[in-house]
Amino acid sequence: MKQLLIAAHGSRRESSNDELKALVAKVSANLGVAFAGVELAFLEFASPSIESVLVDFFNGKTTEVVVLPYFLSAGNHVVQDIPREIHKVLDQWPDKKITVLPHIGALDAMANVIVEACKNDNH
Amino acid sequence: MKQLLIAAHGSRRESSNDELKALVAKVSANLGVAFAGVELAFLEFASPSIESVLVDFFNGKTTEVVVLPYFLSAGNHVVQDIPREIHKVLDQWPDKKITVLPHIGALDAMANVIVEACKNDNH
Repeated sequence: MKQLLIAAHGSRRESSNDELKALVAKVSANLGVAFAGVELAFLEFASPSIESVLVDFFNGKTTEVVVLPYFLSAGNHVVQDIPREIHKVLDQWPDKKITVLPHIGALDAMANVIVEACKNDNH
Repeated sequence: MKQLLIAAHGSRRESSNDELKALVAKVSANLGVAFAGVELAFLEFASPSIESVLVDFFNGKTTEVVVLPYFLSAGNHVVQDIPREIHKVLDQWPDKKITVLPHIGALDAMANVIVEACKNDNH
């Protein structure tokens, strides 16, 4: 059973975390049958943590997790912090599989998102 | 003449700013004829500033600028800092028009970007 984990920074501002929850609900509605579900986790300032969500997954029936780092650039959070959280869990669950996608800012589709937003701008 | 300005945070890490320059090049290649061009500006840690790019635009033939805040959530940078930069410039150029798009994290397309990234994951 495969799960998607969206790994975000987290904010002291509750409305920012709520924005992410709304995004995850949209992803969930469109994710299709390849994934059993999608969960959101945070590095800082909000819960649940990445580690705790991964542990919950692996205590259940999940055998594989795909992690999407919801960050615009490859800073320390993407390069060091998320991999560190993942390796902490894999050390305890060596038979499980965790794949990390490119951070969202690195996806080719981002340029198209900007172009389309400009086309939809009627001002 | 209308220009697009992508307003990003900026990083001490040069590779992060370079990621953005590559993104802007892709946007530029696909933006179409409604815009004369696209420029990148930063709030912190990198140049040029938002103010300086806007002033350059308005010292030229630009009459209108569309600003895309390249931020995932509506934190202080989106809510306060970018509008403050824009208003500083509009105070000097009251006959010009600046439209601010939603920050990129608020665009509906973001959920699709995540879903597509998962479909393309062959691991």
